[in-house]
Amino acid sequence: MEKIYVKPSKRYGRLWIYKNEIVSDVSELSPGTLVRVYELKTNKIIGTGYINPESTISVRLLSFKEETIDNEFFKLRILQSKRYREEFLGFGETYRVIFSESDFLPGLIVDKYNKCLVIQILTAGMEKFKEIIIKILDEVFCPEIIILKNDSPSRLKEGLPIEKQIIKGELKKLPMITEDNVNFLFDPLHGQKTGFFLDQRENRIFLKKLITSGTGLDLFCYVGAWSIHIAQNGAMVIGVDNSQNAIDLAKENAKINNVTEKCKFVKADVFDYLKWEIKKNKKYDFIVVDPPAFVKSRAEKTDAIEGYINLNTLALKLLKKDGVIATSSCSHHISEYEFYEIIKEAFLKNKKSGKIIYKGTQSKDHPILLSMPETAYLKCFIIKVPYCLT
Amino acid sequence: MEKIYVKPSKRYGRLWIYKNEIVSDVSELSPGTLVRVYELKTNKIIGTGYINPESTISVRLLSFKEETIDNEFFKLRILQSKRYREEFLGFGETYRVIFSESDFLPGLIVDKYNKCLVIQILTAGMEKFKEIIIKILDEVFCPEIIILKNDSPSRLKEGLPIEKQIIKGELKKLPMITEDNVNFLFDPLHGQKTGFFLDQRENRIFLKKLITSGTGLDLFCYVGAWSIHIAQNGAMVIGVDNSQNAIDLAKENAKINNVTEKCKFVKADVFDYLKWEIKKNKKYDFIVVDPPAFVKSRAEKTDAIEGYINLNTLALKLLKKDGVIATSSCSHHISEYEFYEIIKEAFLKNKKSGKIIYKGTQSKDHPILLSMPETAYLKCFIIKVPYCLT
Repeated sequence: MEKIYVKPSKRYGRLWIYKNEIVSDVSELSPGTLVRVYELKTNKIIGTGYINPESTISVRLLSFKEETIDNEFFKLRILQSKRYREEFLGFGETYRVIFSESDFLPGLIVDKYNKCLVIQILTAGMEKFKEIIIKILDEVFCPEIIILKNDSPSRLKEGLPIEKQIIKGELKKLPMITEDNVNFLFDPLHGQKTGFFLDQRENRIFLKKLITSGTGLDLFCYVGAWSIHIAQNGAMVIGVDNSQNAIDLAKENAKINNVTEKCKFVKADVFDYLKWEIKKNKKYDFIVVDPPAFVKSRAEKTDAIEGYINLNTLALKLLKKDGVIATSSCSHHISEYEFYEIIKEAFLKNKKSGKIIYKGTQSKDHPILLSMPETAYLKCFIIKVPYCLT
Repeated sequence: MEKIYVKPSKRYGRLWIYKNEIVSDVSELSPGTLVRVYELKTNKIIGTGYINPESTISVRLLSFKEETIDNEFFKLRILQSKRYREEFLGFGETYRVIFSESDFLPGLIVDKYNKCLVIQILTAGMEKFKEIIIKILDEVFCPEIIILKNDSPSRLKEGLPIEKQIIKGELKKLPMITEDNVNFLFDPLHGQKTGFFLDQRENRIFLKKLITSGTGLDLFCYVGAWSIHIAQNGAMVIGVDNSQNAIDLAKENAKINNVTEKCKFVKADVFDYLKWEIKKNKKYDFIVVDPPAFVKSRAEKTDAIEGYINLNTLALKLLKKDGVIATSSCSHHISEYEFYEIIKEAFLKNKKSGKIIYKGTQSKDHPILLSMPETAYLKCFIIKVPYCLT
C-alpha cells in the first residue's frame, strides 16, 4: 500500500486529512488509491484510507490502524453499524445503515427501507469496493430490492459517472415504509437523495405529538411526511412543494393513510405561495419549514443565510399569535449556532420572540461523531410564539 | 412610575437593559423601583420593569408595554405559564411553574412538587410583590405546603436577606414526587436549590431507556435521581456525592423504589473517588457526570473549563470500550458549543472519540427564550465510545 506522510497535529478521531497537511508528493496517485498515512518524524501510524489528490480533503481514513481493507473489514464495519442501530438504539425495519464518516466508512450511504436497500457511493475510494459492499449488504440484510442511487454531483468531481440502477429485484410498485403508525410510499429511483428523509424522523414524531388541532402549512412538503403525521393526529395541513412528482406522491400517501380530508397538497414555489398568502392576510396555527439545503458549498454561505432569514421571515408573517413553527436547516455549512441566529433574526424582523420547545438534530441512525463536528448537519427548532410578545 | 431613557438598539424580545444603555440619571433610584423604559429621541416604549442601579443588568423588564404591574398582571402571567405547561406541553403534578425571564417574570422561580410549592425570589424588584405572588400561587394551585427558599447568594447583592421558611402547611415528613414511575423523596428546605433537579427530567428518562444492563457510576448523584431510574431499569449503579444528607436521602429513595440491591451510594469527593478507581484499574459500562455549576460568574470561566475537562477526562478513563457517558453542565456561562469543545478535549486526552447519541437541554418546563439565549443553561450529551476507536 502507498505510504504518505503528514505534518504532526492533534487529529485524533478525525477521518479527514487536508491537502495542506500532506508532505509527500501524491500528485501521481490516482483518485481512490489506498494509502497508509504516517506522521512525519515520529513515523507513527495515523491510519489507512484512500486518497483523491485533487480534493481539498485529500485523504479520508477508513481506520486508525495499519488495517487491511478487504472483505472482512467491510463486513465487520457493516455488522457493527447494524448492531449499533438495531441492538443498542432499537431501530427496526427502516433506518440508515451506514452514514459515511459517522460509521467510519466515508463516501458510503446505505438506507434500509424495509426490504429495499438504497446505496449511494460518493467517492472514487469507495467506488473501488462497490462489488464487495453490495455482496455483504445482500448477505447481511437479504433485501428484495437493491438500488444504486449514484446521482450525487459530487461523483463528477471524483471522476465517477452518474448512474441510477436497480441491481437486485424489481420495482413493480413503489416500496412502502412505516414510521410511527403512518405508511409512506416513496420513490427510491426518481426521488430526492435515497427517496425519503429518514433524518427528520424523531423531529416529525415530536411535532406530531405536540400538534393535535388547528390548521397549518408544511413548506417543502416533498412526499408529505410531516403533513400526514400531523393530519393523522387531528390537525388540518396544506403541503406546498414545487415538484409535481412529490405532490402526487404526497396525495397518494394521504390516501393510503385515510387522511385525505385533513390534507391538501399544492404544487407551487414556496416563496411565491407565502407571498400570496401574506397578501390574502392568512394566518395559521402552525408552520413546518423544511427546505432542501440552501448551502451546497462554503462560498454560497452568505446568500444561503439570507435565504433562510427571508424564508423564515415570510413564514412567521403567516403564524397566528400563540402559533408554533417547526423550522429546519440541513445545510452542512450552517452551524446550530448560526441557525439559531438566523431564526432569531427572522423573529426580530417580525417583532416576535418565542419559547423554544424543542431543539432537534438528525435522527440517531445518522450518528454525529464527537471528533468530527462536520457529521452534524440537521437542525430543527420548534418554537412557540408566546402570548405576551405578539 | 419612574421614566427612564435608553439608547436605541435592536433589543426586541430582550428583558435585560444594561447599565451602559441607560442615558437617564438613575443613581438615586432604590433597588426594585418600578420603571417605564423609553427609547431616547423616538420616545418609543421599550417596556415596564424594575431597576437595580448597582447591577450591570440594571433593568429587568416584566412587559414590553406601558403595563400596570399589579395583582391582575401577576395572575395573568402565572395562569399563562401554567397553561403552557399543563395544556400545551402535558405536564402533570410536578413541574417548574415559573422560570424567571423565560416566563417574563425575571427574578422569580416557582417549582410545583405535587402538593408542595417552592418559591425563590432573586431580586429586589420581585421581592416587592412577594405577598401578591404567594397569594395568587396559593389560589391557583391550592398547595398543602408553600416554602420560601430565599437562600440564593444573589439576594445579598440586591440588599435582600437570606431566608428559608415554610409559609403554609407543615413539613412533618419529606414530600414525595413521581417521575416516570419512580418515586423520589426530597428535602425542599435543606436541599440544593428548590430541593430537586427537575431540569434533568427528560435527559434522565432518555438515558434510563438506553441503559438496561451493566454497572455504572452516577457522579454527583445528589438524592439519586439518575441512579434510581437506571437501577429500576435493570443496571447496577454506584452513586457518589460529597454530601451525607444527599447520600442518606438517595439510600432512602432506593429503598422506597425497591432497588437497594441495584444501588450503592458512597459519600466521597468525586475527584478523589475517580482517582482511587483509576488506580484500582476499574472499568464501568456507563458513567453519569452531572456536577453542580462550576461557573458562577464570567470571571471564573477559564478555571471552570479546566475543571470540566479534568472531571470528564478522569471519568472517561473508567469507561469500558463501547461504554456510554452521559455528561452535563448547568453553568450559564458555558455555551453548548463550548461544552462540546470541552467534551471533545476530554475524549482527545483519552485518545477516544464517540458517537453522540443524544444532545439534551433543560426540560421543557424550563423554557428557552429565543430572544434571550441566556435562558438556556443546561447541556447534556450522551455519547457512546465506538468499537473501532478505543
